[in-house]
Parts: sequence; structure tokens; C-alpha cells
Amino acid sequence: MIKAAIVGYGNIGRYVLEAIEASGDMECVGIVRRNPNGEQPRELSGYEVKASLAELSVKPDVAILATPTRSVEKFALEALSMGISTADSFDIHGQIWDLRCTLDKAAKEHGCVSVISAGWDPGSDSVVRTLLQACAPKGLTYTNFGPGMSMGHTVAVKAIEGVKHALSMTIPLGTSIHRRMVYVELENGHTLEEVTAKIKADPYFASDETHVIQVDSVDEVIDMGHGVNLTRKGVSGKTQNQLFEFNMKINNPALTGQVLVSAARAALKQQPGAYTMPEIPVMDLLEGDRETLIRHLV
Amino acid sequence: MIKAAIVGYGNIGRYVLEAIEASGDMECVGIVRRNPNGEQPRELSGYEVKASLAELSVKPDVAILATPTRSVEKFALEALSMGISTADSFDIHGQIWDLRCTLDKAAKEHGCVSVISAGWDPGSDSVVRTLLQACAPKGLTYTNFGPGMSMGHTVAVKAIEGVKHALSMTIPLGTSIHRRMVYVELENGHTLEEVTAKIKADPYFASDETHVIQVDSVDEVIDMGHGVNLTRKGVSGKTQNQLFEFNMKINNPALTGQVLVSAARAALKQQPGAYTMPEIPVMDLLEGDRETLIRHLV
Repeated sequence: MIKAAIVGYGNIGRYVLEAIEASGDMECVGIVRRNPNGEQPRELSGYEVKASLAELSVKPDVAILATPTRSVEKFALEALSMGISTADSFDIHGQIWDLRCTLDKAAKEHGCVSVISAGWDPGSDSVVRTLLQACAPKGLTYTNFGPGMSMGHTVAVKAIEGVKHALSMTIPLGTSIHRRMVYVELENGHTLEEVTAKIKADPYFASDETHVIQVDSVDEVIDMGHGVNLTRKGVSGKTQNQLFEFNMKINNPALTGQVLVSAARAALKQQPGAYTMPEIPVMDLLEGDRETLIRHLV
Repeated sequence: MIKAAIVGYGNIGRYVLEAIEASGDMECVGIVRRNPNGEQPRELSGYEVKASLAELSVKPDVAILATPTRSVEKFALEALSMGISTADSFDIHGQIWDLRCTLDKAAKEHGCVSVISAGWDPGSDSVVRTLLQACAPKGLTYTNFGPGMSMGHTVAVKAIEGVKHALSMTIPLGTSIHRRMVYVELENGHTLEEVTAKIKADPYFASDETHVIQVDSVDEVIDMGHGVNLTRKGVSGKTQNQLFEFNMKINNPALTGQVLVSAARAALKQQPGAYTMPEIPVMDLLEGDRETLIRHLV
């Protein structure tokens, strides 16, 4: 059995634990949280909860990082320095290459593996984009997100004065263009007009069509479903107009949790170093015997 | 530049040559044909055409096998024994594992690589099926083919007495169930009723809904477009109803040719042995600098 630890136990961490429990080849040997001595969620009874990987009584083979993206590097370096491989879902697209360089060096120094940006985008979508470029090397790929809740945009709205609670939905308009539908509860003494103006001026929203709607209860309209429509129209060899499309409608944190667990499994099959998902064989993500998998899937 | 040879020059071979010519990192160092001294197609002027790999004046790094599926093993073993890596699009699903075992042994003996079953199904579809199983390990995948021309079914119809020319189209009905639309030109002295009965009794057609239609000219209705609709509904961790879909509308031999060229490139980046497509990193299929590709695609 693969021994996995979960670092961070918010929304993603909970789904990581479910994916480990649903697997047949991995066990959770502990959860690392900031407040290990506080009251713990019921589903953690029976699991060791500590403040650091070093305090766990069983050393994990792999640490699955379910921390905020900006803490990934710190926790990954800590795990790698202990000879523990890592999987994370770091999602700031512009900084992935730099993270890969930093973790590649640390992983090689300590003879272990780091699989980075292993969620659904970046993550499984990245594998599809890469495969489609191999199928039609010239052409255009568009990744259309939603309809679904954008975490980053929601946080940006919540930071605006006068907003009590918020939800920012991403609505795909095609060709990677998105509409933002923002649902807000207002603080007393603030008007929708004033808050709307601030939201539309925010860099997160300034370049997108944005609509702000006042609701009585944001909690009533939140749902963690999300979607992707990814298209490529391109050229195979010299043949134009090859058409490809990938769609999904998914529970967002559940898919992220599952991809993280699959990536953690794959980490233990790679040579030391850091890898993005398109750099590892998809077969390595799966549990089970290679012959059976090839007979079934290829 | 990667030196590639093409073995076999039918429909697929022509598209392989186009994909090599359209690439920036590969050159064709020769074509192997049964009749190298006969008249050659115009696009082969300037290329060396020989009866075997051994006769080529430049030794290729990789041989792309565009032969009939049943000849793949023979030509692959010949190439591997000369230390030449191979890529093929062997497409008999039930025999892929055996071919992999045979070629794995030969490839390791001679320090080279064989990428097998590298077309679109098996091939790129296999990568998608494997990725989706990693995203939702429990659930059902359906691969629906068409509308498009089935080579195997067309050949089966042509072998029936009374059939002068034929086209068998595959029409997807969902959940991997297919309708067969068969277009035939008849020989004099044969009736549609008689030929229809024979087609419906053929093992290729016996279990599918089959319609046979007489036409004046099969050539007038042949088109090499094909399509796939691949769906998976499954469970990520313990979360049900995760929905995934992959669609394509493509020129069939053009995509096969392109995937073969991408697989030939990847072959030169693997350790000695034989691999199906889900066993190689999709990133290795691509031309170009790793950093640029990761920044663009992940």
C-alpha cells in the first residue's frame, strides 16, 4: 500500500481523503493541519492529525498538498527535504515553470519526485491540450471554463468594501472569452450601483463582460459544479480542418482531489525530479496491473 | 533532425510523408516499398525508394510502419534487429498486448524503442480513455465511432459474391452501439435481396443493425472523414456523476499519419522497450523546447 499524507485540510483536502479511501492501493497515514489539537471533523477520527509531516508516526511515501496555492512551494520543499515525494495542484499558470525548476532541483537532491499543477486546469486539461497539439500541430486551442464558480474572482469581490458575501460565476462565451455573473449580499449603507462600479473596475473583471446581481442569500445559490469546453481546430500534416472537442461537467474539488491522488500514485513511478502532468505517462496515474489496463484501455 | 523512414506507401504512408514534411525536426530519409523500381507517385521524386531498410543509403533513427496491420510485427522485428526504433498503428485491439511483449523483448535486445498502436483508436483515444479513468476511476466509458467509413467492414462486403464495389459506413447510436450503412454496386446477375442476406449473415454485421443500399457509383459517396464521440460518466473519489466527453471530426488517414509521426518522435525519447501510447508522456510527442511547451500548454 502507498502511504500518503494530506497537507492542509480544507475543501480540497476533504475530497483527497475520500479519493484515498476509495482507492485500493493507497492509505492515509496522517493529516497535517495548522490546528491539530482543536476539534476535528468527524471523518478524521481514526486518523493521526499533526502540525507537521515530521511529527507523523509513520513516514509517508508521498505528501498530497491541499494547501492554498501560494503555500505549495514552502510545503513541497519541506516534504522533499525529508525524502517524501509530493503532488500539488498549484494553479497560477504563469508561475508553473519556475515552480518546476525549484522543485526539480530539490527533488533530485533528495532522490524523490514532485508532480506539480495536478488538478484539472492546470492538470488533466493540460494533458488534453498537449495531446491535441500532437494530433494537429498547427491550429488554435480554446479553453472555455464554466458555467461554474471561480474561486479567485469570488475572493476578489469579497475584498470589496460593502460586500458581505459573494459568488462569481464564470460563463463561457466561446473562443476563451468569458462573462462574469457576480451575486452579492450587501452590507447596510452600501448601494448596488456603488459596489457594481468597484467590481467592474477591479483588474479581475475590467476586461470581461460583468453583471452584478444583488441576492438575499449567496449561500442559496452556491454550487461547486464546474465545466470545461476545450476545442482545437487544426492541421494534421497538411490536412486542414481537423476538429477536436473535450467537455466536462464535474464537481470541482472532487475532481481536483481525485487527480491529486492519481498524480501521487504516478509520482512513485517516476525518476527523481519535478514533472507537470503532460510529462508523465497517463498509464502511471492508474491503479492496477499493467497488462490488464492495456488490454482494457488501449 | 530526426531521420525517419516510411515502410509501406499506401493511403497512410502518403499522409505520414506529409506530416514529416510539415514538421520542423524530422526528415524522411527514404521509403520502403515492394516495387521500388516501378513508376512512383510524383511526390516521391527526390526521395530514395528501396525494397528494404537495409538498402537505404542513410540509416534511419526510426522507421514508421505504414503497412497493413498484419505485417506490422514482421517489419517491426526487422527494423529493431537493425537497431532502428519503430512506430506503428497496429489496430487489432485483442492482440496489442501480445505484440507489445514480442516487440519489447526485441527492442531491449537491440537498445531501441517501439511505440505500438499509435493511431487514433488505438492511439490518441487510448490516451483519453486512460486519462478519464484517472479522473473518475469508477464508471463506464463508451467509445462511439463515426459517422465514417470502416475499412474492415468495407473489405468484408467487397469479399461477398455479387458485390462489385462497396462502402460500409459506421453510424454511432450511443453506448458503443453502431449501425452499419452499406452502399454497394452489384455485379450483373445478382440481386440486392441476395447480397443483403449475405451481408447480414456475415460475422462483421450479424450483431449490428445493418442496412444495404444499392448505388450507381460507390466512388461518388466515399469520403475519408471519420469521427469519435467518447464519453465517461463516473466517480471521482466518492462523488458520483462526473461527466466527460471527447469528440472529434477528422480526416482518418491524415490523423493516423500525424499521430505516427508524433509517436516516432517520442520513441527517440524513451528507454529501450515497447510502449503503447498511454505509457509515454504526451509531452514527448511534441516538437520544441520543453520550457516553451510547458509555459504554453500546462
